[in-house]
Amino acid sequence: MENFDFVCPTKIIFGKDTENRVGEEVKKYSNKIMLIYGGGSIKRTGLYDKVINSLKENHIEYIELSGVKPNPRLSLVNEGIKICRENNIDFILAVGGGSVIDTAKAIAVGVLYDGDVWDIFIGKSVIEKALPVGVILTLAATGSEASDSAVITNENGWYKKGIHSDLIRPQFAIMNPELLYTLPPYQTAAGAADIMAHIMERYFTNVRNVDLTDRLCEATLKTVINNVPLLMEDPKNYNARAEVMWAGTIAHNGLLDTGRVGDWASHKIEHELSAIYDIAHGAGLAIIFPAWMKYVYKHDINRFVQFAVRVWNVDLSFEDSEAIALEGIKRLESFFKSIGLPTSLKDAGINADRIEEMADKCTVNGKVTVGQFVKLNKDDIINIYNIAK
Amino acid sequence: MENFDFVCPTKIIFGKDTENRVGEEVKKYSNKIMLIYGGGSIKRTGLYDKVINSLKENHIEYIELSGVKPNPRLSLVNEGIKICRENNIDFILAVGGGSVIDTAKAIAVGVLYDGDVWDIFIGKSVIEKALPVGVILTLAATGSEASDSAVITNENGWYKKGIHSDLIRPQFAIMNPELLYTLPPYQTAAGAADIMAHIMERYFTNVRNVDLTDRLCEATLKTVINNVPLLMEDPKNYNARAEVMWAGTIAHNGLLDTGRVGDWASHKIEHELSAIYDIAHGAGLAIIFPAWMKYVYKHDINRFVQFAVRVWNVDLSFEDSEAIALEGIKRLESFFKSIGLPTSLKDAGINADRIEEMADKCTVNGKVTVGQFVKLNKDDIINIYNIAK
Repeated sequence: MENFDFVCPTKIIFGKDTENRVGEEVKKYSNKIMLIYGGGSIKRTGLYDKVINSLKENHIEYIELSGVKPNPRLSLVNEGIKICRENNIDFILAVGGGSVIDTAKAIAVGVLYDGDVWDIFIGKSVIEKALPVGVILTLAATGSEASDSAVITNENGWYKKGIHSDLIRPQFAIMNPELLYTLPPYQTAAGAADIMAHIMERYFTNVRNVDLTDRLCEATLKTVINNVPLLMEDPKNYNARAEVMWAGTIAHNGLLDTGRVGDWASHKIEHELSAIYDIAHGAGLAIIFPAWMKYVYKHDINRFVQFAVRVWNVDLSFEDSEAIALEGIKRLESFFKSIGLPTSLKDAGINADRIEEMADKCTVNGKVTVGQFVKLNKDDIINIYNIAK
Repeated sequence: MENFDFVCPTKIIFGKDTENRVGEEVKKYSNKIMLIYGGGSIKRTGLYDKVINSLKENHIEYIELSGVKPNPRLSLVNEGIKICRENNIDFILAVGGGSVIDTAKAIAVGVLYDGDVWDIFIGKSVIEKALPVGVILTLAATGSEASDSAVITNENGWYKKGIHSDLIRPQFAIMNPELLYTLPPYQTAAGAADIMAHIMERYFTNVRNVDLTDRLCEATLKTVINNVPLLMEDPKNYNARAEVMWAGTIAHNGLLDTGRVGDWASHKIEHELSAIYDIAHGAGLAIIFPAWMKYVYKHDINRFVQFAVRVWNVDLSFEDSEAIALEGIKRLESFFKSIGLPTSLKDAGINADRIEEMADKCTVNGKVTVGQFVKLNKDDIINIYNIAK
């Protein structure tokens, strides 16, 4: 096990009707806030009215910023920064999924950064402070509600980049599983793939003696695997929603990396895909992760055997490790298919004519490698995209 | 799953040599602190010198309070409160195990409480504020390094009582597994029983649909079960120490209760034992927990079957649930025996002549019941002590 520091001070407020506590939580920080959300869905479901009522009851002024899209854009972040500065706003409330939360985090950093916030995304500068952010979560997927990261797409060149700092962990996350009842099945499934990918990125490590976190990863994966099919049958199954939603937070709040070093190649390879084709990040991961596994499993076959046996209950003879490992990958792929996700570029209607370009961007023109479990160069990434065809 | 709030902001600083970072962490809070520890062991191991050096390098003044004993006493807490007040101390550094940390937490509450701190332990008053506490952990057991609780014994009547509040969670916990190398095997084993008991108290719940936390509990239990025997063989096995130490924190930082209601009868029944006989809390739990299980398993046989199958790999025919449940309990008991712990009062050299008195105290003269999974009255508790004979 490696040395580690771990702190996740986000207060989780979980369960039915918890959205009505938002005003009471926000007023601990501010009485003039920015309220960020995506489109009209929170108005259709009545969530918007509940939030506004709770803010008003607590005498909190708010300025709205709406229109956040999946794979959220830098231009909206810059607009938010400008509005916050002009109005002396010192707290940002994100009502939505990962795109809304990541936009809020990027604004929170940008408001207090003296320069172009994109500098931080490209490593030219670091995060020294950020406004506090609060969350009402409406999608179980990115784990951004308690994570130290945010991912934004710069439309100028379609670069998709992430930032990381404990300073951008939200102060609180209100999580009511009922708010997810109206999600289309495809979004629920794509969210589940994202959650599973967050766990698997951590699971495939070269660090030895990580028994506890291995088992916590397996526990969280199994919970998602058992409960998501129930949601495909009945989107209003409260308990299954609750299990998947809480699993989504645990998957990405940092607990599952303690003492280990994750891989993250699949995320980077997928980011190029969703930056160009604007498909759901989770769907992209369902395509890339199995392809990555098929390409790298020989690097540490025992780890893939453990994954197959413990997570997927593969019960083949231990005589043939490779057969067990491949069966585990196959079951992952079948699971993604069973919940309606694409597992190839073709399934997603993407032809393969920009593979070279994506591999190029992913490795900064072939200058860097990607991933920790196996360090992949540009040719490796082209091979993985080709396996995913 | 039940609604819940969860926040654990304790910063974990885990791994080799991390004790040298203590001064740097403390100075974020204070430059005049109380340093609390037990006896001479931290001096023998050299830890004391490292701590003092780090404090001095960071220009932090300290006043020492030593002599904390297992099942820590109220008199020392009151002494600490007095010293802190007289010296305007605003931070408490606990170097030790649960007894030292709990003493520090009780002092931290008492300094800012206008009255007798025992009022809070007996429910006459509540915690409204507390001084910040930091920890260097030297024993994996109580989980107090990140928990919201502290247990103190009042020598006036030998009452052992606990307090709970997010305000007493430590600010940071420095956890170097190497600091545990010199622990006698019996203490390592008793600590492991305490960790396992913290998980099992949460595991046996009447709340339905708690799949994720069930699995996280099982993952953490299995890690302890796999790694503690390695420490009985080799107390300096770094990786096994690290696994058990981190499991001890996860077991009791509140994550494993999210959405469920734990039992806690065994802890209360054991507290009466260790309050009178001054045996190690973990050893007491190794005696009481199996007895409690034998008394209550029929209340929810499926939960005991899950425990037996998933945690202890019991592989009997599912035709006979009771046989599976009992085999799980038997394996728990055998495990405790295998690491040198008592599993009966007789093993611990305790005769049964004060059972009535303990049951009386535990139920406040028969006026209250104990436990949530099954609510136990005084007669039930007498029966459990008798099973444990």
